[in-house]
Amino acid sequence: MSTWQFDADSAIVGGADGEWSTQVTSAWNIGDNPNGGYLLSSVLRAMRELSAHPDPLTVTTHFLRPGSGDQPGVVSAALIRSGRTLSTLQGELTQADKQRIHVVAGFADLGEPGEAPLQIDPPALPPVEECVERSGLEQGVDLPIRDRVDVRLHPDQALAGQAGAAVVSGWIRFSDDRPIDTFALPLFADAFPPSLFGALGFIGWVPTIELTVHVRRRPAHGWIRARFESTDLSDGRMIEDGALWDSTGALVAQSRQVGLLLTDASE
Amino acid sequence: MSTWQFDADSAIVGGADGEWSTQVTSAWNIGDNPNGGYLLSSVLRAMRELSAHPDPLTVTTHFLRPGSGDQPGVVSAALIRSGRTLSTLQGELTQADKQRIHVVAGFADLGEPGEAPLQIDPPALPPVEECVERSGLEQGVDLPIRDRVDVRLHPDQALAGQAGAAVVSGWIRFSDDRPIDTFALPLFADAFPPSLFGALGFIGWVPTIELTVHVRRRPAHGWIRARFESTDLSDGRMIEDGALWDSTGALVAQSRQVGLLLTDASE
Repeated sequence: MSTWQFDADSAIVGGADGEWSTQVTSAWNIGDNPNGGYLLSSVLRAMRELSAHPDPLTVTTHFLRPGSGDQPGVVSAALIRSGRTLSTLQGELTQADKQRIHVVAGFADLGEPGEAPLQIDPPALPPVEECVERSGLEQGVDLPIRDRVDVRLHPDQALAGQAGAAVVSGWIRFSDDRPIDTFALPLFADAFPPSLFGALGFIGWVPTIELTVHVRRRPAHGWIRARFESTDLSDGRMIEDGALWDSTGALVAQSRQVGLLLTDASE
Repeated sequence: MSTWQFDADSAIVGGADGEWSTQVTSAWNIGDNPNGGYLLSSVLRAMRELSAHPDPLTVTTHFLRPGSGDQPGVVSAALIRSGRTLSTLQGELTQADKQRIHVVAGFADLGEPGEAPLQIDPPALPPVEECVERSGLEQGVDLPIRDRVDVRLHPDQALAGQAGAAVVSGWIRFSDDRPIDTFALPLFADAFPPSLFGALGFIGWVPTIELTVHVRRRPAHGWIRARFESTDLSDGRMIEDGALWDSTGALVAQSRQVGLLLTDASE
């Protein structure tokens, strides 16, 4: 078994008839429920066992119900199409006979990074040691996940309503310094506080309906830079866009989610 | 049968055991193959028959193989979860026993438009009559779809490589002036020329791997404004973001796709 926390905590066993078992831990909880990117990782792991291609290029997750920490889960996965350059798969995580997430993904072989004629530049960030650890204040919750991923926020965006815009940016790595691969990026795209926090202050739980992550290239090792912004909040539903860069400044992933704003903060 | 072209051309029949038949026409072709947004519409139609909610809120389509015009198709759809505020479904379009597209969608009831604390403003566009009809020049193809949707491009972005950036914007409506509803917006999000055209000139076919459309509100009637941009082209794979506004200037949809650039134009 792997010595890295992430790999151990999202490990799957089995695979006969497209079903695996997993043990969902509460170590990745945000408040009472496991982080969505963590739940996703066990499903991606099953998909990768079926895929002829190693890298998750496009991953869409529908969050059907919250997961439960310290409960077993059943992961199912199946090929939709196996092509020459792309494998398309679907999968689910079920706990206590209830589906928690549904995932559709395209896997490719991203190979060695090549030319990037169009790029998005990384945000200006203070050095890691001048950034601020995520506190959970923005949602009023405990953050066991802080022992698994090390998130450091831009100091201007770490206090309620202080950013003046719905933006959050910062650094992220695994707490045990596990190497960063394409498999880690969907997780990292879902591990920052909601960007609406910067504009609205305390906002409580912001459940994601659907999250799509596009992995753009294999990341270099080291801290990942990330930036998330919402410019579209309407009728209590928000779109949040994210982007992640590796330690060389190369764009390694983009993300977009549609989520619900459950409090009255938007009124 | 409906008198509107869009509804007639994407009509489905049946529904027993979650299967419908459809007749894919070549009237929506871009070159030799039907437009992807058109293929999607028959699947969305089947999903809506199963959904307790009327509006497609989030729609992710994986394009597995090109469709075939003037060939019958089989549409399948199934509920993943039926919740109080959201129905989650999956579906496929198959022709000649080969899957063409795979779709996962969340349907909601968008109701009457309410508050929008954060919005993206529509682009400045010349009046419709000063814009330019899509010619197909950018991809060197015939465009039968021009008889179905009326697309008018910003004159500064309608010639190869002239825009100086990977941006395309313009107006769109149904040629027969069918009313615009939330069901039309995923189609409209996939009916403009590739935005890379503006930066790179002639680019040939830009196959979409995956397209996600988020419908934000029910549109007012009239011309829809749209803007598409790619700021991320790496290793021959591009991300294109889109946004659509109704005739009142309200943001009604956002889109993002990952696609392939198959020519040498990026080198």
